[in-house]
Amino acid sequence: MKSASFADLLFTVRTKRPLVHHITNRVTVNDCANVTLCIGAAPVMAEALEEVGEMVAMADALVLNIGTLDRQQVDAMLAAGRGANECGVPVILDPVGAGATRMRTDAARTLLDRLEISVLKGNAGEIGVLAGVGGKVRGVDSLGAVGDAPSMAREFAEKSGITVVVSGATDIVTDGTRVLLVDNGHEMMGRLSGTGCMAASLIAAFAAVSSDYVVSSAAALVAFGIAGERAAARAQGPYSFRTALFDELAALGPDDIIRGARVRQA
Amino acid sequence: MKSASFADLLFTVRTKRPLVHHITNRVTVNDCANVTLCIGAAPVMAEALEEVGEMVAMADALVLNIGTLDRQQVDAMLAAGRGANECGVPVILDPVGAGATRMRTDAARTLLDRLEISVLKGNAGEIGVLAGVGGKVRGVDSLGAVGDAPSMAREFAEKSGITVVVSGATDIVTDGTRVLLVDNGHEMMGRLSGTGCMAASLIAAFAAVSSDYVVSSAAALVAFGIAGERAAARAQGPYSFRTALFDELAALGPDDIIRGARVRQA
Amino acid sequence: MKSASFADLLFTVRTKRPLVHHITNRVTVNDCANVTLCIGAAPVMAEALEEVGEMVAMADALVLNIGTLDRQQVDAMLAAGRGANECGVPVILDPVGAGATRMRTDAARTLLDRLEISVLKGNAGEIGVLAGVGGKVRGVDSLGAVGDAPSMAREFAEKSGITVVVSGATDIVTDGTRVLLVDNGHEMMGRLSGTGCMAASLIAAFAAVSSDYVVSSAAALVAFGIAGERAAARAQGPYSFRTALFDELAALGPDDIIRGARVRQA
Repeated sequence: MKSASFADLLFTVRTKRPLVHHITNRVTVNDCANVTLCIGAAPVMAEALEEVGEMVAMADALVLNIGTLDRQQVDAMLAAGRGANECGVPVILDPVGAGATRMRTDAARTLLDRLEISVLKGNAGEIGVLAGVGGKVRGVDSLGAVGDAPSMAREFAEKSGITVVVSGATDIVTDGTRVLLVDNGHEMMGRLSGTGCMAASLIAAFAAVSSDYVVSSAAALVAFGIAGERAAARAQGPYSFRTALFDELAALGPDDIIRGARVRQA
Repeated sequence: MKSASFADLLFTVRTKRPLVHHITNRVTVNDCANVTLCIGAAPVMAEALEEVGEMVAMADALVLNIGTLDRQQVDAMLAAGRGANECGVPVILDPVGAGATRMRTDAARTLLDRLEISVLKGNAGEIGVLAGVGGKVRGVDSLGAVGDAPSMAREFAEKSGITVVVSGATDIVTDGTRVLLVDNGHEMMGRLSGTGCMAASLIAAFAAVSSDYVVSSAAALVAFGIAGERAAARAQGPYSFRTALFDELAALGPDDIIRGARVRQA
Repeated sequence: MKSASFADLLFTVRTKRPLVHHITNRVTVNDCANVTLCIGAAPVMAEALEEVGEMVAMADALVLNIGTLDRQQVDAMLAAGRGANECGVPVILDPVGAGATRMRTDAARTLLDRLEISVLKGNAGEIGVLAGVGGKVRGVDSLGAVGDAPSMAREFAEKSGITVVVSGATDIVTDGTRVLLVDNGHEMMGRLSGTGCMAASLIAAFAAVSSDYVVSSAAALVAFGIAGERAAARAQGPYSFRTALFDELAALGPDDIIRGARVRQA
């Protein structure tokens, strides 16, 4: 039953071609643009304070990724986020490296405090830090959260009113009531830079076509995960995997989702 | 007859290895560097106000791309452009997203007003906006120009004294007198981020070796288009297409140009 | 005997997964992140003045690359470098384009003067300029050094107390006493943007696990060179070469190093 709704959402993304405005990091910005195109949406990157308001007003979703933060970028994120909130455009926050430095933790908290975030997506360490329950982050890698990740995520989502996604071998998606576990994906995805950022772009593309962010986020992760599984089956290493990952994502149809989705309720 | 001159220009690019100075966007900067290398030219990216004058003085062409603009970058573009104009270095302007936000439209107009631009290359929406005849741009995608694109481009080129390139399924190249239509290319190119930016880099590499910017721009688009056609023939999706596109471009010889060029006069 | 120590170092990198903090250029930042992952280390990119001190304190090596310099970045490099020096974290400097503009030459000299650099890696032109013996740089390409490169490098290393790496068809690695010549590699590496930057990331990953920077730098260049040789054997052009290069690097084992290393003493 769920698989069919995931498949429908993929069909809708490909039909509506939502515009996904990114304020994102320099390392993976090209990956984010291309993954957005592969899923059938349209990417735009803009972060000048002078234009973010105008740009987000024509967008269907906004991604904020703090992976290579500077102070100007935080201001642009706040301005774009306020614009998105006014226009009813969903905002996806990827708090890359929160917990590694005070600046990143503070920036993520500021964005969470001042904006209505639709989906917060991070690894267990990042989410643990932001939930205030602890978590360790080294560079941009999670060294794990304290305690049970699904419970931690559910409680944080409940308290904050935000849909929380914790990426990992099994991804957790929760709005505080429902908790979905997505088993799709492959460990090769962790050997490539930017797969976390790409996941955020896909979550945004799906959030643009459905306001049920638990289902839309799970759909995005299912699509990405199935593409990863197929790519891994024919890759010889991280870069042929990358090529295959984008090709598979672009080729993915609703039927593949129905057949391949592996989602459980916690 | 034209095909032979296109082929000669490719030979000249590969022989002279012109240095192409880019002030370009963060999304596709790596693609631009690599496409420049593949065609046989040398890329350099530099945008600090303190060094752009020196860098452009040793360059053979300058690309200005406003795809991820900020205010500092406009100043650097003006300084580099003035340096290029003084040294007789051709300047290629790619007004990415002009029409989408006032900042981008204004920046493109400022650059057009204050600099001698050799080639202005954009999609139909961007060029329509800058020509003052209207045009719609959503993010960085054209939603089409108002009216007949070749006529619009020709008139704008005539009025401005700039060679105008309108990218699309058929590319238009005009200096206000001649109007060339380039049919080379493949729709896969539109499914990949950065192909527009790459085209600007190639146009710059060819402008560096010929001051007949109509012929040199058409030559660049022919080369890119033929590489795209060949790549599409063996690609399984957008990323294997990307790999093949760069490989084919690097492998392209003058003979391939002579055999493959599809250029008409309007 | 040397090959075995190179192989041991690769094993150690893969076992310890050192964190490599980069302040690097926009063109090749994604390549640097992925090459770091492929060799078995963990990349992090951070350059806000507010966070570089904290980030470098948890890192195992620091890469400073001036390829797309601005003034703020120099300040961040100085702050990160001072932090690295205090914590005993090795600092690798890649003076991209030094000699091409005064800004780059001055920035490289400032970093060399004010920081303890562990390894300085550049092409013959860049190193020649910084050694004060002359050298020509056009954009980011060396037009060659003045005189005999190994002697020049050895003397500069001796005077400065820095391990100097001069990249080229044969790479030179010297601390002023020992001079190693690394013959591994393939000319295809020069046809791809970013291989110089990637080499710096690898040198950093190896410097993180050994303070004998002559041996660790040679080990990094051997690993990269062997991967390049293998990739070239099955590539059809620069981009299939790129895919193969990253795949081969990720697949490389200590045995491949023992069998493939081609290192001489000068």
